[in-house]
Amino acid sequence: MTEAATMILFGATGDLAKRKLFPALYSLFREHQLPEQFAVVGVGRRSLSQDVFREHVKSSIESFARYPVNNEWRDFISRFFYVSLDIEEVEDYQTLLHTIETVEHDFNIPENRLFYLAIAPELFEPVTFHLQQAGILKQRGWKRVVIEKPFGHDLRSAEVLNEKIGQVFREEEIYRIDHYLGKEMVQNIEVIRFANTLFEPVWNNQYISNVQITSSEVVGVEGRARYYDHAGALRDMVQNHMLQMMTMVAMEPPSRLKPEAIRDEKVKVLRSIRRMHQAEEISRHVVRAQYLAGEIDSQTVKGYVEEEKVNPNSQTETFVAAKFYIDNFRWAGIPFYIRTGKRLAKKATEVIIQFKQLPPLYYNQSGQLEPNVLVIRIYPENGIYLKLNLRQPEDTDKIAPVSMSFTQNSSPGFHSPEAYERLVKDCLEGDSTYFTRWDEVALAWKIVDPIVRTFESGEVPLYTYKAGSWGPQEAEQLVAHDGLKWWPVLK
Amino acid sequence: MTEAATMILFGATGDLAKRKLFPALYSLFREHQLPEQFAVVGVGRRSLSQDVFREHVKSSIESFARYPVNNEWRDFISRFFYVSLDIEEVEDYQTLLHTIETVEHDFNIPENRLFYLAIAPELFEPVTFHLQQAGILKQRGWKRVVIEKPFGHDLRSAEVLNEKIGQVFREEEIYRIDHYLGKEMVQNIEVIRFANTLFEPVWNNQYISNVQITSSEVVGVEGRARYYDHAGALRDMVQNHMLQMMTMVAMEPPSRLKPEAIRDEKVKVLRSIRRMHQAEEISRHVVRAQYLAGEIDSQTVKGYVEEEKVNPNSQTETFVAAKFYIDNFRWAGIPFYIRTGKRLAKKATEVIIQFKQLPPLYYNQSGQLEPNVLVIRIYPENGIYLKLNLRQPEDTDKIAPVSMSFTQNSSPGFHSPEAYERLVKDCLEGDSTYFTRWDEVALAWKIVDPIVRTFESGEVPLYTYKAGSWGPQEAEQLVAHDGLKWWPVLK
Repeated sequence: MTEAATMILFGATGDLAKRKLFPALYSLFREHQLPEQFAVVGVGRRSLSQDVFREHVKSSIESFARYPVNNEWRDFISRFFYVSLDIEEVEDYQTLLHTIETVEHDFNIPENRLFYLAIAPELFEPVTFHLQQAGILKQRGWKRVVIEKPFGHDLRSAEVLNEKIGQVFREEEIYRIDHYLGKEMVQNIEVIRFANTLFEPVWNNQYISNVQITSSEVVGVEGRARYYDHAGALRDMVQNHMLQMMTMVAMEPPSRLKPEAIRDEKVKVLRSIRRMHQAEEISRHVVRAQYLAGEIDSQTVKGYVEEEKVNPNSQTETFVAAKFYIDNFRWAGIPFYIRTGKRLAKKATEVIIQFKQLPPLYYNQSGQLEPNVLVIRIYPENGIYLKLNLRQPEDTDKIAPVSMSFTQNSSPGFHSPEAYERLVKDCLEGDSTYFTRWDEVALAWKIVDPIVRTFESGEVPLYTYKAGSWGPQEAEQLVAHDGLKWWPVLK
Repeated sequence: MTEAATMILFGATGDLAKRKLFPALYSLFREHQLPEQFAVVGVGRRSLSQDVFREHVKSSIESFARYPVNNEWRDFISRFFYVSLDIEEVEDYQTLLHTIETVEHDFNIPENRLFYLAIAPELFEPVTFHLQQAGILKQRGWKRVVIEKPFGHDLRSAEVLNEKIGQVFREEEIYRIDHYLGKEMVQNIEVIRFANTLFEPVWNNQYISNVQITSSEVVGVEGRARYYDHAGALRDMVQNHMLQMMTMVAMEPPSRLKPEAIRDEKVKVLRSIRRMHQAEEISRHVVRAQYLAGEIDSQTVKGYVEEEKVNPNSQTETFVAAKFYIDNFRWAGIPFYIRTGKRLAKKATEVIIQFKQLPPLYYNQSGQLEPNVLVIRIYPENGIYLKLNLRQPEDTDKIAPVSMSFTQNSSPGFHSPEAYERLVKDCLEGDSTYFTRWDEVALAWKIVDPIVRTFESGEVPLYTYKAGSWGPQEAEQLVAHDGLKWWPVLK
């Protein structure tokens, strides 16, 4: 159950708030999933009147929300307040405290405070420091802090950041967002595995040949060039989203479906992922590449280094494909391939479980029978897709693949909740299952750091690919080398 | 490959020839699956001219074939000949021999002779006897005989019949038709099992809870009352079709996909089916019933004993539901439920694999999670249907079944071949995989005979059900007693 609370939203005039958080709050409100005693104190650098802020919230919802504004609007918007704040200005935090207390009083909200830091990571530390100094964290109820990625840019910086935040918030009060974990079908990975008799028996290296996780984007760097050119695809996507999806697929059944038990299992997977340290080994297992000019939807698009605010000599990767091994009993010997990149042919996120080839017996004497494949469709569809073999009725000697699928989106009248709706609700309920715990973050950096270092030292070649393609040829070779292929993203 | 041959069709003016065999031959012809050197000598009691017979074939094809008559018709019909024959008249067989030889000469067909006995079973013996006497079986090529069901009405009569036919044909020359084995999805059972990595690992008593095989008819006895009132559903459907489908689901992987290897495995299943002898035991495992008047499609229909040519005091069952156990390592403890009957609510044939319930853990703490179910749809659709559990996106705490299906019929431009097309082609190719071998027939009678005896002795109650229903309440209790239910036939 969600509990009465005040959400203090830093970055209230920013892009994430506008595109995701206000719409998420509105959906939850419309579905009666917000507590009755609930308010939002928006915090931003800009000086805005209450009314202008509320207009801003309204226009965000009109542009991005799943529900249109209706006659409950006044109730909703009356819960929004704004405080203009200079991060380093101590007095501003007093104003903030005062506003929070007033809101809590007016809405009869116990002192449960959810701090949502939708701001640049370098501001996490000063904000939390000043929140404490100002006495805002001496609430009588609970306090929680939501932190957006990136959480550090390597292990060392993540540790420093974590230490600072840890001086003010306890680990169980820290909700590190990985919004992929809020996606319906990512959450459904555990349901597929643990609510179906059919899958768990074959979910291991005896029956699975390999796992392929793709998350492709069509967009380029857009407004994020400054950050992205320092981060690159490995930090931006692999350290968090891709490894998180891998842990969901690979984890052992937890002792129970509770946040700590689940995260314990995910940590075990991260610990078992084989670390790569030598440049030679990394070159064989990791392909990095940068996009060149190309064509998308019949439109010419620039190459990465021609993008605004990107260093013209940038060696930053906009694409990564990698092969990981998980050295435990369940997965020994089974490659987990991941690939992610910008300016690819299609925006999609899929987890593909390729089952082992049958022995060359029976209907597979030629060895040409296609393997069974389960696709967990995360984007653009929410659903699952299963490829099986049946006989071709026209030709009784021919066994051919047929496909079955289930798509949630296609259920009549169905609106899929957005990832942020689930995650905001989870925070309000104190359910940290789909947030990353510190040891997960640290382990993910331990996996990624040595790879980043070889990238930065230039020991691993930077390949190129044309915008609108599926990445460099070398990514194909990575799997072809193992006698496999990337399954094309579903239509 | 089909081989050049002459098909000698006894019962050429009968119902089976008209509805199934001529249309099957025509489809094979149109799909170039008949050998170039091929002819049909129709044999019937009636005296018909060649032309009238060919008109008869044509009208059969116009009414029942999948392909319309086209400009290849003359080629097709020129291969049809007719001989009028009195079963006991020795001279008629000389005429038959002469016609066969002429046809073989004219069409340059080697003496490969396929005898198709689409006639009453009491005529099998005299016909084969006279064929031999007349020297028709002294061909220089191969000879094969196709025999329609019923093959005996109990073990003893089947043995006698088999012995008689065995004096003239060797076992490998005898093709005992069970047309259910010609159905696309019945044949696909082995493909589902042996061409998919996903299923074989869970195809056993560790993961399967029970198997349900339903074959329901809407029609009553129609023109078959005289035969049916002596046979009943157990002999008419269970001894052959239902037990055959059971063997396809239950058999061990054969040493190879060859007729004898497959039939060896089916025989092993039949041997392992637990025999029931005591009336008390049979009463607990077998429900028999007879239909009363009722309503089908808003039309009142008669009860069984009111049907024409049915004994008004008939105790014949028109419905059987039964529970069998297969006492081997793979299936120990797993019930196989079958049900079949006339005047049921819908015509359908389905094999349902119900997987075991998950332990009351994780998403199944309430124990209320639906099991995974695989439905092999044999009629009216050709396809498979799979029920899995996913989370309800509207309510993250609720896991609910979703279904995925694949239907062959819905592929564009696709015409499903009829069972008889496959079987006739198999005979011409000498492939006996989907015909029942003598030991299968004998074992099936050994399973059914003791049950029939308790039926006939009146030791097992004859229940009733309303036409248009799904059978008697006692059939529901049969499975409810095991904490289960019949899965409703799919729409």
